[in-house]
Amino acid sequence: MSISLIGLDADDTLWHSESHFVATEQRFMELLSPWIESEEAASHLLETERENLRLFGYGIKGFTLSMIETGLAASDGQISSAALGEIVTWGKELLAHPVELLPDVVETIDRLASVGYRLALITKGDLFHQEAKVAESGLADRFEAVEILSEKSPANYQRVLDRMNVSAAEFLMVGNSVPSDVLPVVELGGQAVHVPYHVTWGHERAEGERGNWHELSSIAELPALLGQ
Amino acid sequence: MSISLIGLDADDTLWHSESHFVATEQRFMELLSPWIESEEAASHLLETERENLRLFGYGIKGFTLSMIETGLAASDGQISSAALGEIVTWGKELLAHPVELLPDVVETIDRLASVGYRLALITKGDLFHQEAKVAESGLADRFEAVEILSEKSPANYQRVLDRMNVSAAEFLMVGNSVPSDVLPVVELGGQAVHVPYHVTWGHERAEGERGNWHELSSIAELPALLGQ
Repeated sequence: MSISLIGLDADDTLWHSESHFVATEQRFMELLSPWIESEEAASHLLETERENLRLFGYGIKGFTLSMIETGLAASDGQISSAALGEIVTWGKELLAHPVELLPDVVETIDRLASVGYRLALITKGDLFHQEAKVAESGLADRFEAVEILSEKSPANYQRVLDRMNVSAAEFLMVGNSVPSDVLPVVELGGQAVHVPYHVTWGHERAEGERGNWHELSSIAELPALLGQ
Repeated sequence: MSISLIGLDADDTLWHSESHFVATEQRFMELLSPWIESEEAASHLLETERENLRLFGYGIKGFTLSMIETGLAASDGQISSAALGEIVTWGKELLAHPVELLPDVVETIDRLASVGYRLALITKGDLFHQEAKVAESGLADRFEAVEILSEKSPANYQRVLDRMNVSAAEFLMVGNSVPSDVLPVVELGGQAVHVPYHVTWGHERAEGERGNWHELSSIAELPALLGQ
């Protein structure tokens, strides 16, 4: 591979994220248990989140508003205002949650930088919260660019590559989401490495033609894949 | 003035925004009228918004969550869950509100572009919603760059200037907010034009040493100020 630029996704690639959402969803399902089965609550919430994506985009604030909306609908308006206030508190707790780096992240990034790769953090979602997490992670200085996109579309990836003067053929993207980190990059002619996180949000699950990208079980295996 | 790059703020500079928030706040004050006077409700809401800024950043989703939090606190938990659901609906209506350009915006931008100024749209707030509004406005193609910042700090302005290869001395920023569009640019050594909107969010009100920037009553006066 003649890779010059490595893009790294952030949530669930560099640090834990989805596991916090899952824990909150668990509390949400308990809150709705007087009216609705857990599984039904989860699928109702995912449906509401998906419908709201075109208005809310990604991120915790939209997730919180979608929980409130689902709580009202699934309880047929029976949920108490205090319970809705609790949901707001969960959202604020999620936003304030400390950044917890995944294992081997710092060592791997330092290794890749030391052998001359250019590194970009490429994430999507809420600009304000993503910037706060990048700052808190202590990793910002290790990246030549930090790009926060509203959506990981091929066009948005292309803009990042243009800005960094890199062709798709020299670009490798690493992340936990097949639809966000793998497929759009493969579509552009770049390389992609899928490193699954132990849980995946329903909206980020997708299948594609395996074989068009690399699969690793840990980011620590990345230098070996690159022949380093 | 030897200006090469003109930065234009978006909300309340190119299109209406704060007037929609004010209309929603009006409904919020009515909703809380059983428990609290209008003025008190407004100041309670502003206080909550300010406290939440460090977690939420700017934008409608955070505003909506702050209304819910304020409604619960100001009614001492007496507000109904249906009323909180109504607040969520207002938030979604605000997000879906069509973009309404301010008068003379298109003509002024075209005029400035035709005489050779580089133009950048520089706004802050919610990445997803701001991108959607830029797209809907039909103005995107008129700007060499569209920069959506989490905060209009001097450091963030400097990053935009660096990226566009422009010194602060060649930069003029135009906007309706003294703390966001004027003071940080003046601090960097750039020029700023304040074009007030007819209403200003409490958080964006600020005084500074007048005389360090230009005041216009309409964006239409901008070409004349620049000697065009």
